[in-house]
Amino acid sequence: MTKQEIGVIGMAVMGKNLALNIESRGYSVSIFNRTGSKTEEVVAEHPDKNLVPTYTIEDFVASLEVPRRILIMVKAGDPTDKTIQSLLPHLDKGDILIDGGNTFYQDTIRRNTELSARGINFIGTGVSGGEEGALKGPAIMPGGQKEAYELVAPILKEIAAKAKDGEPCVTYIGADGAGHYVKMVHNGIEYGDMQLIAESYALLRDVVGLSVEEIAAVFAEWNKTELDSYLIEITADILTRKDDKTGKPIVDVILDRAGNKGTGKWTSQSALDLGVSLPLITESVFARYISAIKDERVAASKVLAKPAPYQLDEEKAAFVEKIRQALYFSKIMSYAQGFSQMRVASENYNWDLKYGEIAKIFRAGCIIRAQFLQNITDAYGRNPELKNLLMDEYFVDITKNYQQSVRDVVSVAVQSGTAIPTFSSAIAYYDSYRSATLPANIIQAQRDYFGAHTYERTDKEGTFHYDWYGEEN
Amino acid sequence: MTKQEIGVIGMAVMGKNLALNIESRGYSVSIFNRTGSKTEEVVAEHPDKNLVPTYTIEDFVASLEVPRRILIMVKAGDPTDKTIQSLLPHLDKGDILIDGGNTFYQDTIRRNTELSARGINFIGTGVSGGEEGALKGPAIMPGGQKEAYELVAPILKEIAAKAKDGEPCVTYIGADGAGHYVKMVHNGIEYGDMQLIAESYALLRDVVGLSVEEIAAVFAEWNKTELDSYLIEITADILTRKDDKTGKPIVDVILDRAGNKGTGKWTSQSALDLGVSLPLITESVFARYISAIKDERVAASKVLAKPAPYQLDEEKAAFVEKIRQALYFSKIMSYAQGFSQMRVASENYNWDLKYGEIAKIFRAGCIIRAQFLQNITDAYGRNPELKNLLMDEYFVDITKNYQQSVRDVVSVAVQSGTAIPTFSSAIAYYDSYRSATLPANIIQAQRDYFGAHTYERTDKEGTFHYDWYGEEN
Repeated sequence: MTKQEIGVIGMAVMGKNLALNIESRGYSVSIFNRTGSKTEEVVAEHPDKNLVPTYTIEDFVASLEVPRRILIMVKAGDPTDKTIQSLLPHLDKGDILIDGGNTFYQDTIRRNTELSARGINFIGTGVSGGEEGALKGPAIMPGGQKEAYELVAPILKEIAAKAKDGEPCVTYIGADGAGHYVKMVHNGIEYGDMQLIAESYALLRDVVGLSVEEIAAVFAEWNKTELDSYLIEITADILTRKDDKTGKPIVDVILDRAGNKGTGKWTSQSALDLGVSLPLITESVFARYISAIKDERVAASKVLAKPAPYQLDEEKAAFVEKIRQALYFSKIMSYAQGFSQMRVASENYNWDLKYGEIAKIFRAGCIIRAQFLQNITDAYGRNPELKNLLMDEYFVDITKNYQQSVRDVVSVAVQSGTAIPTFSSAIAYYDSYRSATLPANIIQAQRDYFGAHTYERTDKEGTFHYDWYGEEN
Repeated sequence: MTKQEIGVIGMAVMGKNLALNIESRGYSVSIFNRTGSKTEEVVAEHPDKNLVPTYTIEDFVASLEVPRRILIMVKAGDPTDKTIQSLLPHLDKGDILIDGGNTFYQDTIRRNTELSARGINFIGTGVSGGEEGALKGPAIMPGGQKEAYELVAPILKEIAAKAKDGEPCVTYIGADGAGHYVKMVHNGIEYGDMQLIAESYALLRDVVGLSVEEIAAVFAEWNKTELDSYLIEITADILTRKDDKTGKPIVDVILDRAGNKGTGKWTSQSALDLGVSLPLITESVFARYISAIKDERVAASKVLAKPAPYQLDEEKAAFVEKIRQALYFSKIMSYAQGFSQMRVASENYNWDLKYGEIAKIFRAGCIIRAQFLQNITDAYGRNPELKNLLMDEYFVDITKNYQQSVRDVVSVAVQSGTAIPTFSSAIAYYDSYRSATLPANIIQAQRDYFGAHTYERTDKEGTFHYDWYGEEN
């Protein structure tokens, strides 16, 4: 009996599509699903593919070449642990488990430690690109034992998306949870990008007064500029789509209540733990939360005061260009924050992340893919020790040229009553980061006053306490 | 041998001051500290007080009336667990442990569950007011078994701060972790208040161009208005103080690098978990983080572009009044968010929190004490089911009158390059909350496009998926 080169557990859409993707590169693939009927379905749908169905964990494991390469595509959390437990009795030292779910990085660190004590390799990998990406080429962010990565790298490179220069969008990220951490930050950045686009849409519609068709054209135009990216492209496309039933633009019948799967929240919580300032992504998470309380908002809209009606006092086209510049500027703030977070996480967890490589694999396959990521790769190429993207010459130049547009757009939005939590957070971050002096001296004085927390001085080293109550006299 | 009515473990400044406070109300107090010399010191410093020193845990426990009332004032975290473990062999069923540390509420929930299984009562209580408050009268937020609370309530009421109407600033908050949760949110609110004051200071100094003395006078004036509060009062006082060595205002020699003890971070992380929008407090946490990277900021200040020099084109006094209104407006946004968080937490953890009572006990003793808290108590008196403070008539009225000032202040700040993360977050929250429609429909369309996450419709119930790729044709 010939053995298969790799096995995939979990035949929901992501697992199925990854199995098909791997098979399409000439590999033989064993598949398994907890519910066998699902496995039968997949085989029935794809009779001409080299997918070998198995119906017990024992058979599944036995059907694989040694060292075994097993891709686990089940729901993150408890199901992943259960799957690992069911596999364990049948594995041999040196086998490689690959968790491709949207797993919390701390779980991956724990599993890697537990399994490596038993001689099993464990790779936690981010997979981005949705169902379509899984089938045709996702961005892949694997973390875990480097030696084990090398044994699966040929497959991962073949199934990954390819950037325009032909490079596969996969690279070894780092030890244990590094891959899932980077995927988490990727998702946080995705939240920020989406909220920035949503705020741009609100400004174009409510302040500039464009129709949905006109806004579609604006996004299509923007996609030809430095904003060129998957999310801008699909937004342009979305805005051209009509609802079958009403004939209205589909966006006009979609309810403004945003859901989430928790990865944005994790990103913010990790930044809070690491002491890294991550306001833009966090505001985008909170924007989803406030969107979700639609009933409260509708009630409030009838009671709370609006500003006076606002009339844009400049040419529409000029203001649209300002919004475009504000969007690019704010996107840069978001990535600067996300990459700073990865830097601090890398130091904290000893991952030795390669930021330029990470930006490189984001260039295709994943949801945040964008031309602009090349600028990030270039920035880290110029200086791998870069503390913050804003300090790179390309970004210094862009922010210099675009900062006034952000200031104007935020002013107009605030005066017109358009909620722009991420645009305003972006300029606040920029102005904070470039301020040699911030009013945190007031906070330190207060903390020393009521809690004797001490303060540092501008003119010498050390910590000091002021005699606020005259207690030392 | 007579027994003491209560015991205090941990003779650092908070424990010592609480012991002295309790003793001053006529109670006999046993004291214990892991390092006995500290206990000796306290007794030597206060030979005339009814403090009974003990030097072993056995003697300490044996010295107390049954049921024993033991206040634990040690460092939060592991030391608290160790202290509880050392006490346990000597306790009887019905004894009451009170943790008055800055404990994470999840730890309190866990300890309450573990101890209650052994018949021991466990009260986790927030204590706010710093060293001074501990000695003279703090605000106290106890959570745990109601019956156990009743047995310590007489003491807590005597040592607590008293509001102007004579009411003690203590009330039963709710089961298990409720007291520490409310204290945590109190601290988060404190972060927000402090950052708003810091941003006001920056505007008064950099945009209005006032001297430190003039700003001290402004805060002193503000403290006679509806902003009347401890933090405004001490800010006015702080700004009058000079550095002994240089003769400069002390704030001019205090380094602008803010520290933190983590409670603001916890508040934000909990809001993220509960799905509650808490941008203002979170921005204030991030503002501390960005203040901390002083070296990066100094380097960035030399490279990143500033806006063109800004000249205020209105009367100084008028703009100062706008800042005052913006500060009050933004403070209201922060409390509205914090109280919404408590409401969702209360539902989530079954605490049945009484928001009006909570605002009441914040009126004196604690760091966020302020005249304005009476308005919150009144609001919940009018409607205990209030979903968001902004919907109460008093706050509807204030926000209506002050919203234009915030818009003007934010515009000026953004144009002048003054970083105001919490002011701008406040107006974004207001404009989001009062918007019947937000652009989250775009986010839902995108999520459905790339991940088939489905969307809801404005015109009927259910979840729907759009045929973006023509796959159903």
